[in-house]
Amino acid sequence: MSDSVKKPLNMLQKAVNKDVSVRLKNDQEYKGKMINIDQYMNVILVDAEEHSNGALSANYGKIVIRGNNVLFIKIETDL
Amino acid sequence: MSDSVKKPLNMLQKAVNKDVSVRLKNDQEYKGKMINIDQYMNVILVDAEEHSNGALSANYGKIVIRGNNVLFIKIETDL
Amino acid sequence: MSDSVKKPLNMLQKAVNKDVSVRLKNDQEYKGKMINIDQYMNVILVDAEEHSNGALSANYGKIVIRGNNVLFIKIETDL
Amino acid sequence: MSDSVKKPLNMLQKAVNKDVSVRLKNDQEYKGKMINIDQYMNVILVDAEEHSNGALSANYGKIVIRGNNVLFIKIETDL
Amino acid sequence: MSDSVKKPLNMLQKAVNKDVSVRLKNDQEYKGKMINIDQYMNVILVDAEEHSNGALSANYGKIVIRGNNVLFIKIETDL
Amino acid sequence: MSDSVKKPLNMLQKAVNKDVSVRLKNDQEYKGKMINIDQYMNVILVDAEEHSNGALSANYGKIVIRGNNVLFIKIETDL
Amino acid sequence: MSDSVKKPLNMLQKAVNKDVSVRLKNDQEYKGKMINIDQYMNVILVDAEEHSNGALSANYGKIVIRGNNVLFIKIETDL
Repeated sequence: MSDSVKKPLNMLQKAVNKDVSVRLKNDQEYKGKMINIDQYMNVILVDAEEHSNGALSANYGKIVIRGNNVLFIKIETDL
Repeated sequence: MSDSVKKPLNMLQKAVNKDVSVRLKNDQEYKGKMINIDQYMNVILVDAEEHSNGALSANYGKIVIRGNNVLFIKIETDL
Repeated sequence: MSDSVKKPLNMLQKAVNKDVSVRLKNDQEYKGKMINIDQYMNVILVDAEEHSNGALSANYGKIVIRGNNVLFIKIETDL
Repeated sequence: MSDSVKKPLNMLQKAVNKDVSVRLKNDQEYKGKMINIDQYMNVILVDAEEHSNGALSANYGKIVIRGNNVLFIKIETDL
Repeated sequence: MSDSVKKPLNMLQKAVNKDVSVRLKNDQEYKGKMINIDQYMNVILVDAEEHSNGALSANYGKIVIRGNNVLFIKIETDL
Repeated sequence: MSDSVKKPLNMLQKAVNKDVSVRLKNDQEYKGKMINIDQYMNVILVDAEEHSNGALSANYGKIVIRGNNVLFIKIETDL
Repeated sequence: MSDSVKKPLNMLQKAVNKDVSVRLKNDQEYKGKMINIDQYMNVILVDAEEHSNGALSANYGKIVIRGNNVLFIKIETDL
């Protein structure tokens, strides 16, 4: 199994071009396709939905989220 | 496709001279033309509108936003 | 005894593939199997339960928690 | 055009001896002549007005603002 | 006396395997045996009691507290 | 004029042994003679007055303020 | 006079084994004998009194305060 065990930042790299949900410290959530991510967890999302208090609050074609705001990133698909 | 995939900071460099919206941690949003940006996400905006609670609250000819306040940057145009 | 005494980050490495609870600064708790962790305490959890105010609030197949949000990590099993 | 495009910190250097408004994270604003600024955005202002909730709240002959408090700096004049 | 004067981090190292109370910034307190600690004040506690508002609120067999949450560490025994 | 233009930290060094007011992020203000200051804006004040909500709240013979709490430092005298 | 002028961290070193009051960002104050201090302002206090809202709230034989919580340190005696 050890071969498939990735460090957290490598795991996130493997999720590039996959659907993710990015939960921020302010409790808002951004769901979209993660085009890229770097070691600070700066994230590019395309076709992103913003969810506030569980409800869809906005749509964004392309956003770059600053990594220090990230609480966690949910990977929606098997890697 | 890999050629066109940029790291987040490179993507932001590509958006220089384009229209962006910069959402800050205090929930205010600044929309304008991004003249430049550095690796801390310090951003120069010109002809910027400040939006607070969804309403236009001020206009600025030129502002430099300190990067550590940035929540995300929305890129308004295709790159 | 000194042989079995690990530094905190080494102890966390030893807990990889074990069940843990990750308590965040916002008081939410994430319980699951810790697939990996790095020196910033960025954590990969699988089959994770989110607990808010003591009640189960969500389930996640796979999440990567950004380490700077971590309050403490409870190791559920003997190492 | 590329010759006149400055990085954010260089742009701020170019604004030395010009009038600026420094908005802080606590929402107070300091307007005055920027005598100097460094790479942390530590700023020296002279003949500065403090504005709180839109009203003039104090005057300062010379203050040094610690950069980490800065939200943005508005450059009042063309550079 | 100078021989017995330790720097704060060395003093904490000397308290390994002793009983301590770790007060966090959120005002919760964790009392237990400190198995190890590193230079960030990341702490391993075993047989730990969580105290909230002065009352026992939970017990933990083994937790690793992230150091940046620590307010102070009380050393319960003479060193 | 360029000879007399100092970087912010150099300007603060020039104010050593002068009267200053140190405004902190928590809105308290400390007025006294600045005996020394370093590059983090750690400040030594002697014969210091603490002002809270505009009123004198305490006197201190000698205090060392940790720089990261500083909002701004007002230099009371011409340099 | 220049010989007796110390940088803030050197001044704090000179106060080792003297009585100090350590005011934290959460407004609590810890008074005791400062056994040692390092460059992060991590402080060891012995025979320490905790004061909350001006009243004595606890006594501690020996505590190590994490430096990033410090607002200021009052030096009670002439150096």
